[in-house]
Amino acid sequence: MSSDQHTQSVESAGLTDVPGFQASGVSCDVRDLGDGRLDVALVFSRHPCSAAAVFTTNEVVAAPVTLNRESLQKVDVHHGVIVNSGNANAWTGAQGIADAREMQAMAAAACDVAQPSILVCSTGRIGLPLPMLRIRNGIRDAATGKGTSSEHGINASQAILTTDSNAKRATVHVTTAQGDITIAGMAKGAGMIHPDMATMLAFIATDAKIERSCLQDMLRNAVKTSFNAITVDGDRSTNDTVIVLANGHCEITVDPTDTSLHAGFSQALHQVCSILAEKLVCDGEKITKVVEILIEGAASEADAEAIARAMGNSLLVKTSWYGNDPNWGRLMDAAGYAGARIEEFKVDLAYKPHSASSDSTQPVAVLRSGNALTENEHLWKTIVARERFTILLNLNIGSSSYRFLAADLTEEYVDFNKSE
Amino acid sequence: MSSDQHTQSVESAGLTDVPGFQASGVSCDVRDLGDGRLDVALVFSRHPCSAAAVFTTNEVVAAPVTLNRESLQKVDVHHGVIVNSGNANAWTGAQGIADAREMQAMAAAACDVAQPSILVCSTGRIGLPLPMLRIRNGIRDAATGKGTSSEHGINASQAILTTDSNAKRATVHVTTAQGDITIAGMAKGAGMIHPDMATMLAFIATDAKIERSCLQDMLRNAVKTSFNAITVDGDRSTNDTVIVLANGHCEITVDPTDTSLHAGFSQALHQVCSILAEKLVCDGEKITKVVEILIEGAASEADAEAIARAMGNSLLVKTSWYGNDPNWGRLMDAAGYAGARIEEFKVDLAYKPHSASSDSTQPVAVLRSGNALTENEHLWKTIVARERFTILLNLNIGSSSYRFLAADLTEEYVDFNKSE
Repeated sequence: MSSDQHTQSVESAGLTDVPGFQASGVSCDVRDLGDGRLDVALVFSRHPCSAAAVFTTNEVVAAPVTLNRESLQKVDVHHGVIVNSGNANAWTGAQGIADAREMQAMAAAACDVAQPSILVCSTGRIGLPLPMLRIRNGIRDAATGKGTSSEHGINASQAILTTDSNAKRATVHVTTAQGDITIAGMAKGAGMIHPDMATMLAFIATDAKIERSCLQDMLRNAVKTSFNAITVDGDRSTNDTVIVLANGHCEITVDPTDTSLHAGFSQALHQVCSILAEKLVCDGEKITKVVEILIEGAASEADAEAIARAMGNSLLVKTSWYGNDPNWGRLMDAAGYAGARIEEFKVDLAYKPHSASSDSTQPVAVLRSGNALTENEHLWKTIVARERFTILLNLNIGSSSYRFLAADLTEEYVDFNKSE
Repeated sequence: MSSDQHTQSVESAGLTDVPGFQASGVSCDVRDLGDGRLDVALVFSRHPCSAAAVFTTNEVVAAPVTLNRESLQKVDVHHGVIVNSGNANAWTGAQGIADAREMQAMAAAACDVAQPSILVCSTGRIGLPLPMLRIRNGIRDAATGKGTSSEHGINASQAILTTDSNAKRATVHVTTAQGDITIAGMAKGAGMIHPDMATMLAFIATDAKIERSCLQDMLRNAVKTSFNAITVDGDRSTNDTVIVLANGHCEITVDPTDTSLHAGFSQALHQVCSILAEKLVCDGEKITKVVEILIEGAASEADAEAIARAMGNSLLVKTSWYGNDPNWGRLMDAAGYAGARIEEFKVDLAYKPHSASSDSTQPVAVLRSGNALTENEHLWKTIVARERFTILLNLNIGSSSYRFLAADLTEEYVDFNKSE
């Protein structure tokens, strides 16, 4: 980024931090519990937007995912997203598609825009038909009640939650020579699928002007090392969706010809995704720890990623974290079955306290050239007893690296997920 | 198999059920606990044997695995296996290789056979040097004390255990026109790696006369649908090994030219492997349920296997089993991310009581052509509340199938594995 640009992360009210975006979060009792919980969110921009999206790689996809793929092909500009929580509208057959389409039609009509310009997302139980009588009320109220205040943005971020314990928002300002750009986002629950509750959803808005394919490329890159580099339980849902809308309200055009601005915006978009992704892991179901896994010196990025994922998804590794056990044997066992190239006597492994910790954050060596430095064992234990720490693995056979965030596995997770 | 052949599974004392095989299980206190636990086993045949073996696919392998690969290349006949539990001799560097080689040399000398004709296995903690002073005593005692009684076979099967709660043995007799063949085996702990405890080990002996490459082919086939078709926690260890020794004592030659005998022997070898594999899952760490996953009608066997493994290794599926929850949404979500071809509206899914149950074992439909038969929900619940049941998934798009055995995930598993 050039010296006349800088980015700043600020306290966030979510999507209404971005000029030209309205939002709302209302209650229509999707869950039929009569508890007044917010469960329908609308995001809307009167300015037409470029839209980009990344969806789940699951072969079984929910009806709204199918509809969104169609809508993104059908029209070039979009105006917003209608979202419900409490029901995933997944594995719901032809009725599910019809219901998603009706949600889209109602929201578009209420906002006076073309039907395919509204995207649709659902999250919650799989295999139950949507309660459309109540959903219709929700969409009507969400359209009527939309606005640009912080409260509107915060309500929307709450209406999309399922088993999350808190709302997740992020806002970054990019200062450029031409003026300010804002990027803001909100997200819910990753890889922490409560009994039948699905899904990671993230919605990002910006007032920059960006051509659609350029936006899609930037989103794909940002997601790769943020939302796609975290794990709680290794399960991937039928509804996972990240959508970004760019309404051009600030009249600053981001495109590849202005290398510096393009790089600066990409970095800021990645920052918003990373903040949201980190909030998702930290709010993983019944976790007690978040562990950063940094693989370096791998023969390829694919190798580095495979090792990080094998470590972060191993039940034995995750339970050892929960037990404050610096069990490097389990880490190296998982690394070994990742299918990546490893040479035992080149491996350096270290534990490092999280950088936000108040005291020393020096790494403490565990293996040096494959040999265990057992004299450090008392230090390993103090580090892995923390709520956050880093595992640094250098394979010393190449120059590729990968960063991954993972959570531990607790008895409470099993208890929480065992019951209907 | 022709009508003059049949196989029979009988109560097993392990490898000493096979004529010409001696065994022993002795205590040398590998763990330094002074508890008299059996921890060194020897299997020996004075008749030279054809040997075949299948090892872990883990990139990080223990020293004995490296040594065995070398020994199998170096000589054409083998005489036995020396095994210790309590220490895996994994991630132990040059000293580990030297120690494994010394175990081999001592056992071979004590039995008066060529050094590379003895194979070596270790199972237990990773990353600690073997206590060779005690191991040497163990090998000496094992060689002196070896014999052909049932007690010898049973002791050997106990000496190889780590966190297993019981010994696992299987014996199958094959009656042929030329006479009887015996195949017997013993095994320990699969995918249930206690704090640093590694590994699935299985040892099989037969008195048939079989050329080495033919034996290797039959073993590879048998392992594929037995030991490699089970999971407890999805982790794969650095030491996993299956070894079969054929000493030719009964003077019946099994080779591909006698199609019927070859098929009969293959089937019996598979039966021994399957009995042992099933015992391994049933003794998985802190499990309460064993679930058979039968995938049918898949586009390819790879697809069928990928779906079965995704289901059997999903934390959300495993915790739902533990909670007696007939949660088909989680099953289909896992099936969806397996990377296999699925067409939602062709899928038939059913729960079926285990065939050994006394009462009805009729399957109860869950999905028919993708539609949930919720009127059966009370029946689903009675089935998944059992200790054993089957999940039948027919994709109805091809003719490939796969069978997989998996265990549930319990709070006790997490508690058991969290501590050092």
